[in-house]
Amino acid sequence: MELTILGCHSATPRTNTHTTSQLVKMQQHQFLVDCGEATQIRLRQHKAKLFSINHIFISHLHGDHFYGLIGLVSSYRLMGRTTDLHIYGPKGIKEIILLQLKLANSWTDYGLYFHELELKESVCVFEDEKIKVSTLPLDHRVYTNGFLFEEKLGLRKINREAVAALDLSPAAFKTLQQGKDLQLPSGKQIANSSLTFDPAPPFKYAFCSDTAYHEPLVELLQGVDVLYHEATFLEQHRDLAAKTKHTTALQAAKIAKAAQVGTLILGHYSTRYKEKQAFLDEAQTEFPNVVLAEDGKHFSYG
Amino acid sequence: MELTILGCHSATPRTNTHTTSQLVKMQQHQFLVDCGEATQIRLRQHKAKLFSINHIFISHLHGDHFYGLIGLVSSYRLMGRTTDLHIYGPKGIKEIILLQLKLANSWTDYGLYFHELELKESVCVFEDEKIKVSTLPLDHRVYTNGFLFEEKLGLRKINREAVAALDLSPAAFKTLQQGKDLQLPSGKQIANSSLTFDPAPPFKYAFCSDTAYHEPLVELLQGVDVLYHEATFLEQHRDLAAKTKHTTALQAAKIAKAAQVGTLILGHYSTRYKEKQAFLDEAQTEFPNVVLAEDGKHFSYG
Repeated sequence: MELTILGCHSATPRTNTHTTSQLVKMQQHQFLVDCGEATQIRLRQHKAKLFSINHIFISHLHGDHFYGLIGLVSSYRLMGRTTDLHIYGPKGIKEIILLQLKLANSWTDYGLYFHELELKESVCVFEDEKIKVSTLPLDHRVYTNGFLFEEKLGLRKINREAVAALDLSPAAFKTLQQGKDLQLPSGKQIANSSLTFDPAPPFKYAFCSDTAYHEPLVELLQGVDVLYHEATFLEQHRDLAAKTKHTTALQAAKIAKAAQVGTLILGHYSTRYKEKQAFLDEAQTEFPNVVLAEDGKHFSYG
Repeated sequence: MELTILGCHSATPRTNTHTTSQLVKMQQHQFLVDCGEATQIRLRQHKAKLFSINHIFISHLHGDHFYGLIGLVSSYRLMGRTTDLHIYGPKGIKEIILLQLKLANSWTDYGLYFHELELKESVCVFEDEKIKVSTLPLDHRVYTNGFLFEEKLGLRKINREAVAALDLSPAAFKTLQQGKDLQLPSGKQIANSSLTFDPAPPFKYAFCSDTAYHEPLVELLQGVDVLYHEATFLEQHRDLAAKTKHTTALQAAKIAKAAQVGTLILGHYSTRYKEKQAFLDEAQTEFPNVVLAEDGKHFSYG
């Protein structure tokens, strides 16, 4: 799994800081998560393969998380996109995008599919053979979802050494990969576990922005390898965090600890803080494995 | 008059090129003309006084001319703007902006006034004591206006040497500034022209983007000092220009020549052209006084 932080600052884009957007590469997919203003420019700066993005997930309809969407949708049209594009986001997102395409008399030539969300429970929004994406209902000033990207458990890996002498057919290989025991023509049965290795454990990445401190998340985040959780404020502004329905670095670390995630990535910093080290220090008093998101930072896992 | 080109490229923003937006400083005003995606970032990069912008003029509802508007409107709210903001643009612009503010539950605390345009004739859209802004109806694929920014003729300038011996009252000064002859207490009358100089000629700036070659413009552009006219294409793509309702560099120069403008600034270049020199060369075969807009370029006149 590869994660590129295109932007991780809150509220307004500035000369050198960008609002929320992330590129999540998992299995053969390249998902775009949130799309703040000028995300298409960030994608170009990072030499992302623009046409490999087929699914865009929007957490909520505050501008710092989606004002770049209409520009990307329009640019795809001008660039001659022909493949379908799927957009997952709160109810209303379709109206916003289509109104602008209509008034510009510029309908897309490619298929543009909206999957509008309005449920308050976690639901699966995308699934194929290898991956599943579900919503993570958050607690913000407007209807908001995080997203959980889960790999599915892969096929068992053949132990080449152990099967070397057996002269197996392709069908037998498939049987072993699926976890079944092997039945030899002689009638002898060999336990699957002696001929295969466990598949790589499925990777789970969770994106949670924006939200107040929200304990119901803990259950949904169990077993997550990497959690991106907003930390707009430090504890010194805990009241402001509560009032604006955002989280402090310490609170994000509490969620990470309770859910026993592997790594916590913090982001969505308020521009009031000049230095980010304090976010790391504060979170690490509660949970050791914390890293700070930075615009343009690239994470590679697995 | 000061003109800052924030962006002058067509269609899509790229890593190093920006879509249309200009800052026009005239008299005490700082007008924003068009507002492509990420214009608020460009304004910050150029250290523009964001809160001095009270009037934004949008030519048409293609994304490369207005996708940055919602971001600027929202950022003003987050930055605590309290003064009124006036937006002039095609019918529909109000619905686009208000829909997004509504769904974000983020109404502005400052007065946001829309002046929607739908007339096909040139109309005055803003006027005060010193300045007048009118539409310049253009011929594009959607309803589009350019804008003409005209200073009004100022007061006559007192010839300090000529009035030195006269011991004039403030009222008499005002009379002279207004162009009236001076009546001395003795009854003697002195011609205004012997005591004053002509005021500075009023400056006229015209912005014309996007449009097909449109001869009716010539009459409206008479006496314009500086004309920004789109030149999306070169003559080699004249058919494409006609089809997409854009202009070639040569056609823009023909308009400039026929209207006898002072200077022609070309812009809105298609990204298909790597070098811009050909735009200058082509236009100068018809009209000598041509300059090329560049993102970030600053022009100062008068």
